[in-house]
Amino acid sequence: MNNTAVLRINCPDRKGLVAAVSSLLYNHGANITHADQHQDHQAGLFFMRVEWMLNGFDLDAFTEAFRSTAAELQMQWRLNVTAEAPRVAIFVSQHLHCLVDLLHRQQAGELHCSIPLIVSNHRNAEGLARFYGVEFRYISVEPGAKADAEEEQQRLLSERAVDLIILARYMQILSPAFVREYPARIINVHHSFLPAFVGARPYHAAFRRGVKLIGATSHYVTETLDEGPIIEQDVMRISHRDQVEDLIQKGRDIEKVVLSRAVKWHLEHRILCYGNKTVVFD
Amino acid sequence: MNNTAVLRINCPDRKGLVAAVSSLLYNHGANITHADQHQDHQAGLFFMRVEWMLNGFDLDAFTEAFRSTAAELQMQWRLNVTAEAPRVAIFVSQHLHCLVDLLHRQQAGELHCSIPLIVSNHRNAEGLARFYGVEFRYISVEPGAKADAEEEQQRLLSERAVDLIILARYMQILSPAFVREYPARIINVHHSFLPAFVGARPYHAAFRRGVKLIGATSHYVTETLDEGPIIEQDVMRISHRDQVEDLIQKGRDIEKVVLSRAVKWHLEHRILCYGNKTVVFD
Amino acid sequence: MNNTAVLRINCPDRKGLVAAVSSLLYNHGANITHADQHQDHQAGLFFMRVEWMLNGFDLDAFTEAFRSTAAELQMQWRLNVTAEAPRVAIFVSQHLHCLVDLLHRQQAGELHCSIPLIVSNHRNAEGLARFYGVEFRYISVEPGAKADAEEEQQRLLSERAVDLIILARYMQILSPAFVREYPARIINVHHSFLPAFVGARPYHAAFRRGVKLIGATSHYVTETLDEGPIIEQDVMRISHRDQVEDLIQKGRDIEKVVLSRAVKWHLEHRILCYGNKTVVFD
Amino acid sequence: MNNTAVLRINCPDRKGLVAAVSSLLYNHGANITHADQHQDHQAGLFFMRVEWMLNGFDLDAFTEAFRSTAAELQMQWRLNVTAEAPRVAIFVSQHLHCLVDLLHRQQAGELHCSIPLIVSNHRNAEGLARFYGVEFRYISVEPGAKADAEEEQQRLLSERAVDLIILARYMQILSPAFVREYPARIINVHHSFLPAFVGARPYHAAFRRGVKLIGATSHYVTETLDEGPIIEQDVMRISHRDQVEDLIQKGRDIEKVVLSRAVKWHLEHRILCYGNKTVVFD
Repeated sequence: MNNTAVLRINCPDRKGLVAAVSSLLYNHGANITHADQHQDHQAGLFFMRVEWMLNGFDLDAFTEAFRSTAAELQMQWRLNVTAEAPRVAIFVSQHLHCLVDLLHRQQAGELHCSIPLIVSNHRNAEGLARFYGVEFRYISVEPGAKADAEEEQQRLLSERAVDLIILARYMQILSPAFVREYPARIINVHHSFLPAFVGARPYHAAFRRGVKLIGATSHYVTETLDEGPIIEQDVMRISHRDQVEDLIQKGRDIEKVVLSRAVKWHLEHRILCYGNKTVVFD
Repeated sequence: MNNTAVLRINCPDRKGLVAAVSSLLYNHGANITHADQHQDHQAGLFFMRVEWMLNGFDLDAFTEAFRSTAAELQMQWRLNVTAEAPRVAIFVSQHLHCLVDLLHRQQAGELHCSIPLIVSNHRNAEGLARFYGVEFRYISVEPGAKADAEEEQQRLLSERAVDLIILARYMQILSPAFVREYPARIINVHHSFLPAFVGARPYHAAFRRGVKLIGATSHYVTETLDEGPIIEQDVMRISHRDQVEDLIQKGRDIEKVVLSRAVKWHLEHRILCYGNKTVVFD
Repeated sequence: MNNTAVLRINCPDRKGLVAAVSSLLYNHGANITHADQHQDHQAGLFFMRVEWMLNGFDLDAFTEAFRSTAAELQMQWRLNVTAEAPRVAIFVSQHLHCLVDLLHRQQAGELHCSIPLIVSNHRNAEGLARFYGVEFRYISVEPGAKADAEEEQQRLLSERAVDLIILARYMQILSPAFVREYPARIINVHHSFLPAFVGARPYHAAFRRGVKLIGATSHYVTETLDEGPIIEQDVMRISHRDQVEDLIQKGRDIEKVVLSRAVKWHLEHRILCYGNKTVVFD
Repeated sequence: MNNTAVLRINCPDRKGLVAAVSSLLYNHGANITHADQHQDHQAGLFFMRVEWMLNGFDLDAFTEAFRSTAAELQMQWRLNVTAEAPRVAIFVSQHLHCLVDLLHRQQAGELHCSIPLIVSNHRNAEGLARFYGVEFRYISVEPGAKADAEEEQQRLLSERAVDLIILARYMQILSPAFVREYPARIINVHHSFLPAFVGARPYHAAFRRGVKLIGATSHYVTETLDEGPIIEQDVMRISHRDQVEDLIQKGRDIEKVVLSRAVKWHLEHRILCYGNKTVVFD
């Protein structure tokens, strides 16, 4: 992992935006390693992601100068330094395949983050958490007492200074109040090709409908269930030979891949949200 | 194309079904070239498709003998002789990509059928029809006069002894009465990954939702729009760079493939329908 | 996992094979749950896999009766009882992603086997083995002393009564003598779409050639490197943006899937080898 | 199709390249609609593609100014005006599926080009050429007289001012001398996933090897057969049920898609070649 800065910009489209940003960077001596931009012509919007080396670069001076350019051009922007690994909490219920996958990827260096916390409403992830040296917190969600559970969850998230929450097959619905605290900072995996089969038991619904492909979707969580901005989707072929149990088992492989890609892209600051969509710069 | 017979069976599951059918065929001297079966354990159903050579085989004697076996075992069945190529009518509107694809495949020998008729509510397919030597009928569908159009269509279908109707991006909705005349004999292609984006302008809906894959679905037409048994589906990756026009253009490639596969399987008597699903023996 | 028997047959094609087998099973009262067959018309070969319930079934009597049928029809055959979970040893080197994946799948019930042994020429899998309660044996493979290492490996495999060896990114080449001991019982994953990029460092070779997809292949190991019968393959799209390191990282996701599918099919007795090919009944 | 200019640049990487190009465009009042760049860090190379509107833009003045910038920064570059549709010749042999596909795509507006010429060593494409209003030339390639055939082909290509040659399943090997005349201007489709199965009859080779996926590759033609820079590849799943004939038939669907994408990208000036690779800006 290089020591770089990543700047993401989202603003009304107009002439000269790339010239303005790239010239400013050049004038500060930036060695750009990646740059990408996108225009949504219909919406009249411009998106940019640029990454450059920080060795010998005066980031404060650049930020100071950029601030006024950004104000002038009505830019919304975020500047991240890749040396600071984001802090991630994973929420999980009974099915552990996504958790196992994420923990190994983090350990193998695929995911640039630290994982200070695993939260679950079941106890079966505890051994795994201990093996990977991650704090495990069992928080049961009792009927009618979700507010209490969420209060405890939020206290922990705050104390552990968590930047990103991953719902790795966490089968509880978070309250709107909770979700509002973490805009574009909660990533969920839904086990269907959204918008098909919103809600509970999507593999059962897919089986009943007789589809020939099953899918999975990772998305940012918003207040409306399964309707947040989609980050990644994938599908897998099935046949009439597959029973519901086969769909559930085969589907896990796409859930893992689709969730881990979304997390990786988020951690590398590759995603820009606008409206209910994402731009993902690869 | 060999001279073979294809028997498809659908019945309550019980012991000895394969033994009964295969022994009967063996006793009549059948040289089986393909056989496949499937059990839906949940529904308690058994499906079988068996194909055998007809040279020197007494089909009448077998059919006679099989009829009583079938009655005894409560079998629904169909027996087809592959030497008789099914007769196909293609319905199309303005977009001709599926039509071009089907006509070339038929000419190249991929689709074992004859195509005696093309029906359209536009005139732009006329030259193509003439080039491939297929009768072209322009039948406009005027608001409030669909019944008249359908009457003329049905008369033509009947006179041309059509076995299968392909809706190759035909943008008119057939009436329930029309559909009832051709059970499991009308194949449509819908330009989305059903059940996502039912109805009109699915690419526009997909664009608005910000999906990362687009799809297409071929299915038998039933009285409820876009809800018939799915035969085949496929998808294609898109990105934030794709505008609606790109989705429409890229989607054509999956529409063609998904429709032509469904047609091919139907013509080769590989599909069994049950409930709202299909079993496709490959 | 039901208590079933699985019979796999491979013999010269002739009339009446399905009838012979299915009638014999029916006469012994078998409740067949799955049956599949395949003919290679060119090679004149017939393949069959049939699975049936064992509750109240006299397997000895059937086997006795079948033995003479099989001899008469020149059948090669294998009969397995699914209640007996095969015993698997996993060989691994430094990269643990396939191992992590297999261990979790086994624990989650996806793979019907026991795993009594992990062998490695590195020590970094030891903690993982302990976490999953599997014996770990470090066996270094010194230059010029491979025979010693293999002797120890074979002794362990024999003592632990291992049925199947999985090379889960094991980076040592097994000697022909070793391989001959386990015909169609060693499964390897090669990190390319074979036969492209045989041998060492296939991702580097793929990068140099500028391919647009990378692949992985699982296959039975034979005496000739990377040339055994292919069981499963898959690919993933890459672009000019991907460096060798990206190929290596992305490729892991296909390696895991391709290897675990092959293992699952082997454990479920779905694979028949003939010539240098496999028939995989799904 | 908008009236735009497309500039492609390939040069040694250094600081300030994006700033230099985008500032120059801004100073000339360019309304940029698409811009993309790529760095090959290992090779130390920089690639850029930028597209802008030409209404009211003084292209001559910009070109004049850019020429000196380009010289200073050691840029190789090409500037194309999208209003000028490239002129394409299609070479074809007996199998017409790619030709049918390309002709319909061009007519439907998917491919921004004119097609003044079809060349074939068989006569069966003649009717199709006439239907689409394209000149058809039958040029037989007799053993020992390839030079004569190529001379006639080159004369026609020159007279028709052809910019791009598409080998749409043209089964003759062009001589090195011919190929040298059209660097990065001949696109071929090979019916395998290169570098697997180079040379003749790749589907037969794939069948013998028992692969589980078949593929197709579109690439620029260089003097060494099947070794030019790869533009696009795709694959399709097959099974043990597929005979060679099935591979040939199924493979056509990938051949068409893979070839037409390469042609489309070439016509839209999205491809940059370097070494034996391509950068394709989407």
